[in-house]
Amino acid sequence: MTTARYLNNAWYVAAWSNELSRSLLERTILEQPVLLYRKENGDAVAIGNACPHRHAPLHLGKLIGDAVQCPYHGLRFNGAGTCVLNPHGDGMIPTRMRTASYPVIERHNLIWLWFGEVDKADPATIPDFSCHKDPELAFVGGVIEMKAHYELITDNLLDLAHSEFVHEGLLSSAGYTASKLQTIEQGTTIYANRWAPNCDAMPAFHMIFDGHKEGDPVDHWAYMRWDAPAHMLLDVGIAHPGRPRGEGAWIYGTDILTPKDATTTYYFWGITRAYKQNDPAAGELWRQVIKGAFEGQDQVVIEAQQRMLGDRSFEEVDPVMFASDAAAQRARKLLARLREQQAVPRPENPVLSSLRQQHGQSRSPILPVV
Amino acid sequence: MTTARYLNNAWYVAAWSNELSRSLLERTILEQPVLLYRKENGDAVAIGNACPHRHAPLHLGKLIGDAVQCPYHGLRFNGAGTCVLNPHGDGMIPTRMRTASYPVIERHNLIWLWFGEVDKADPATIPDFSCHKDPELAFVGGVIEMKAHYELITDNLLDLAHSEFVHEGLLSSAGYTASKLQTIEQGTTIYANRWAPNCDAMPAFHMIFDGHKEGDPVDHWAYMRWDAPAHMLLDVGIAHPGRPRGEGAWIYGTDILTPKDATTTYYFWGITRAYKQNDPAAGELWRQVIKGAFEGQDQVVIEAQQRMLGDRSFEEVDPVMFASDAAAQRARKLLARLREQQAVPRPENPVLSSLRQQHGQSRSPILPVV
Amino acid sequence: MTTARYLNNAWYVAAWSNELSRSLLERTILEQPVLLYRKENGDAVAIGNACPHRHAPLHLGKLIGDAVQCPYHGLRFNGAGTCVLNPHGDGMIPTRMRTASYPVIERHNLIWLWFGEVDKADPATIPDFSCHKDPELAFVGGVIEMKAHYELITDNLLDLAHSEFVHEGLLSSAGYTASKLQTIEQGTTIYANRWAPNCDAMPAFHMIFDGHKEGDPVDHWAYMRWDAPAHMLLDVGIAHPGRPRGEGAWIYGTDILTPKDATTTYYFWGITRAYKQNDPAAGELWRQVIKGAFEGQDQVVIEAQQRMLGDRSFEEVDPVMFASDAAAQRARKLLARLREQQAVPRPENPVLSSLRQQHGQSRSPILPVV
Repeated sequence: MTTARYLNNAWYVAAWSNELSRSLLERTILEQPVLLYRKENGDAVAIGNACPHRHAPLHLGKLIGDAVQCPYHGLRFNGAGTCVLNPHGDGMIPTRMRTASYPVIERHNLIWLWFGEVDKADPATIPDFSCHKDPELAFVGGVIEMKAHYELITDNLLDLAHSEFVHEGLLSSAGYTASKLQTIEQGTTIYANRWAPNCDAMPAFHMIFDGHKEGDPVDHWAYMRWDAPAHMLLDVGIAHPGRPRGEGAWIYGTDILTPKDATTTYYFWGITRAYKQNDPAAGELWRQVIKGAFEGQDQVVIEAQQRMLGDRSFEEVDPVMFASDAAAQRARKLLARLREQQAVPRPENPVLSSLRQQHGQSRSPILPVV
Repeated sequence: MTTARYLNNAWYVAAWSNELSRSLLERTILEQPVLLYRKENGDAVAIGNACPHRHAPLHLGKLIGDAVQCPYHGLRFNGAGTCVLNPHGDGMIPTRMRTASYPVIERHNLIWLWFGEVDKADPATIPDFSCHKDPELAFVGGVIEMKAHYELITDNLLDLAHSEFVHEGLLSSAGYTASKLQTIEQGTTIYANRWAPNCDAMPAFHMIFDGHKEGDPVDHWAYMRWDAPAHMLLDVGIAHPGRPRGEGAWIYGTDILTPKDATTTYYFWGITRAYKQNDPAAGELWRQVIKGAFEGQDQVVIEAQQRMLGDRSFEEVDPVMFASDAAAQRARKLLARLREQQAVPRPENPVLSSLRQQHGQSRSPILPVV
Repeated sequence: MTTARYLNNAWYVAAWSNELSRSLLERTILEQPVLLYRKENGDAVAIGNACPHRHAPLHLGKLIGDAVQCPYHGLRFNGAGTCVLNPHGDGMIPTRMRTASYPVIERHNLIWLWFGEVDKADPATIPDFSCHKDPELAFVGGVIEMKAHYELITDNLLDLAHSEFVHEGLLSSAGYTASKLQTIEQGTTIYANRWAPNCDAMPAFHMIFDGHKEGDPVDHWAYMRWDAPAHMLLDVGIAHPGRPRGEGAWIYGTDILTPKDATTTYYFWGITRAYKQNDPAAGELWRQVIKGAFEGQDQVVIEAQQRMLGDRSFEEVDPVMFASDAAAQRARKLLARLREQQAVPRPENPVLSSLRQQHGQSRSPILPVV
C-alpha cells in the first residue's frame, strides 16, 4: 500500500463536479480509499473512506447533516475526518479517532484533491481547464475506468497518430499520421503539436464542420497540452487549406488521468465545443463518438498492452521508440524527475479565454503563438 | 500452506451433523483439505481429501462400503486414512500410502475435528452447546461462507451494539447501543454482556414475545459466551421492565466460526428457542431473519472491511478502539497467547440445562449468576 | 517471465495445420506471446506477438500481404519479425525494431516451433506422427486448454489404468487395470506398454470392432510412445483372444502437450483410424468420445489435482508412487535431466508406415517387435 510510486505533491482529479451530491461516492486514488460528498451548503468534501475504528468503508453508511455515519458502529465523522459522535456507552471519543482528510478544490467542473504535503497544496498550480465553464462554449464529459497504468494512456494521448490505426474510419487521416510531431517544453508543461496542411480530414470532423465536404482536403491540427502527472487539453480542428484557422472548426478535448492503482486508471474525458452550444444532440453525438473511440478502441488496445506487460513496467521491457514518441518520452522523464524529488508541478498555461480573444472567438489555441 | 497462523490444538466445527451422510462432503479447514462422510454404522469420519498418490481430491470419488475410492486410480482408503486396496498390477500397497486422519467427535449436532497434537485431543474441552439437543427446546441452524478473517467476525459478535446500525429496523435498539458492555474472563472463556433496562426493544423480538406491544419499553439483555478459537453462544431476550426475566422471551444464538483460510470463514449459526417448539414455521421465520441479517447485512459490512484491509492484518492497520471493544480485544489477546503457546483452550462453561433448572425453565442463562 | 523452467531446446507444437490461415492466431507458449499465420504462398509463420514499439499485441492488427500491421501505430512486421514499414513522420525504422522470430516446421498436420538455441533446431528431432497424413488412414483432431501443469497430464497418459475409474463405462476394463505395465527406455524415447490378454474390453471399443460382441473377452493392448517434452502416440486395440492382432481393431491416439505456462497446457489430441476411412461419421463419433472422456472426465480430475497442489510442484508434495507409475516417473526424471542440461531430445521412433508393412496393414505397432 505504499504510495512512493506516485507523485503525491500534485493535484489529482477525483470526480467531475456533477458526480458529487448528497450521496456518498467512493473512489480509490493512488491506492488510497477516498470518500466524496457535498455538505448541506454544497461544499465538496473528501475524507478517507476507511473508518479508523474497524476499517469498515464509510461509503456504505449515510450522511447525517454534514457528517458521515459509519455503517458498522454508527461513529460519525465530519468533513474534516474528525469523529464527532460515538453513540456507544459513555460516548467518549478517542483523540486518534479520525480518518484522512484531503484538501479539495472545486474548479472548472472538476473536483481536485491533494495527496501530498499539505503546506504545498497551492491551488494556483491547478492546470487551466476554464473552457469547461466558459459561457460561450458547451461541454460534455464523463469518466471511464481503464485497466492500465496511467502512463500508458498518456503515451496514447501524446501521440495521436495512433488514430489512423486504432480509430480507422472515425478519426483516421493518413496526412495527419505523416505530419511531424513538434514537442515544446515550458516549465513542467509539455506541448505535443501536429500541423498537417492540405491533407485528408479525420471523418468525425465532417460532423462538426458544416462547410466541409467529404473528400475535400483540409488543414488539420492537433495541439496537446500536458501537465504532470497526467492532465491534458487538446486543441484539435480543421480548416480549408490555406485559410485562417478562425474560419475552420475545432473542439477542446479534455483527457485527465487519475491512477487508481498501478494498473487501473480513472480517465476523465471532456469535449468542449464552440458550435451548436444550445443543442444537446451535438453534445450527445460526441458522447457516442467518445464511447466508440475511447471505450471501443483505445481501451481495447491499451488494456491488451497492459496485459502483455503484466507485472513489468514499461521501461523494464526496453521498448523501441521512434521520432513521434518524443513528447511521450519527455513527459515520462519529466514525471519521473518530479516523482523522485516529490516536486510540485507548476503548469505554464496561458489563460484559454484571453488566448481566444487574442486570436478571435472562433479559435481554440492553447498556446500564445500557433 | 503453513498452519502456524492457527491454533491447532483446539476443536473446530467442520459441519452440522445433518450435513454428513453417505455422500462425500469436502471442506477446507485451517487450509487443510478435509473429506467428511458417515460409515455404514453412521459414525462420522474425517480424513485428508488429497489422495497421497497423485493428490486428486477424494471427494470426487465414491464410497464403497466404509472406504472411499479415489476418482483417479481407484485406490481405496478407510476411515482412518489408510489405503486398503490398490486395484493395479500386483496390488501392492506402499506403507506410506495413507492420507491424513482427524479425531472426530459428534456432539450437540456438531461435527468437531482436532487438527493439533493427537494426544491432546480431549473431548472434555469441547464447549457446551447442549442446548441444540435439549428435548424441551427447538433448534434451527445453517452455515454461511464469509470472505473474511474469522477474527473480524468474532469482533462483530463480541460487540452486538453494531446492531442498531448494521441491522437498522430489524435488530436495532438505541437503548441497547447506549448500554454498558461488561466483560468477564473465566479461564479461557470470555463473557461479553449487556443489560439494558427499560429501553426500546429490537424489532425482531416482537415476533417472539406475544405479550409485548411495539413501542412498549423492555428490559433487554444479550449475554455472549466466547471460547477459543471462535465458539460463541448468546443468551438474548427481553422482559417487561422490572419484571423477572423468567417472564420474558429469549433465544440462544449459536455462532461458531471455523477458518477456511486467512480470509475465508465457515460461519455455523443456530437459533434455539423455548417457544412454539413444535411449529416449524417459527424456526423458518428465524432462518429468514438470519438470512436477512447475517448474509444481507453483517456479511456485506465484514467482507467490505476485509477488502479494505486487503493483505494487512487487523493489528497492522493500528485500529482505534474504544470502551465497547473491550471484550473483542480481550478475546484477540487471549487467542494470540494460546496460539503462540499452542495451548489447549479449557472452556469454563456451566452446564446450560442445570442453569436453566436453577433459574426456571423459561430462562436462558449462560452464567451461574445473572 | 523466465523460461528456465522449460526445456527450450525442443520442438513444441503450436497448432494443428488447419488452425493456421490468413487470419492472425495468438498463442502463449512457454510463457512467450506468439503470433501465427500463413503467408500468401501458404508458408506458416511464427513471430513474437508483442510489438517491440509499445508491446501492443499484434494479433489485434491485420495482415497486409505477408506483413502484420500493428493495431496501435500501424508499424508493419514481416514473417521474420523485422519492421518493414513505419508510417509516421519520416518513416525511419530503428534497427532494434524487430520482434521475436521462431523457426517453424509444418509436418504431419502439425506446426512445430523451436524456442531454444537456433543452431540446434534440427527438424530431424521431431517425433514421427506421420500417421496423421497416411493416405490409408483417416484422422480427426483438436485442441483442449487445460488448467494444469503439462507433466500432470503426461502422468495421466503414461498410465492409462486410470481409465477404469475416470472413464467408467466408456473406457474401463478391470482386466486392463490388472495388467502389468512394461516400461522401455530407448534413448530419449520411453514406451509405456500394457498387454492384457483374455480380458473385458473397454466399452468404447465395441464401436470400432464389428466382429466383437459385448461381454466377449478380448486381448487388449495399449502401447504408448513418449518423447520429451510431452509428445505421445498411442497404439491401442483389441483382438479375439489368442488370435493375431492383425485380425483385431485398433486406433492411434495422439496426445501432444504444449505448456502455456506453469499451470496451463494446450492439449493437442488426435485419433487416427484404419476403418471407415471415408465415413466422416466415424471420425465425428471419436470426436464425441474424446470430448466426453478428455474434457468431461480427465480434465475435471487433472484440474482438481492442480488446484489441490496450488503453487506447489508435484515433487514438493512428496507423492507416494507404486509399480504402475514407473513410466511416468521415468519420463519426469528424463525430462528433468534434459531440462537441466538444455539437451535436445533425440526420439528413437521407428517409422510407422514401415512398421505397419512389416506387421501387416491392419496392425498399429509403434515398436519394431511387439
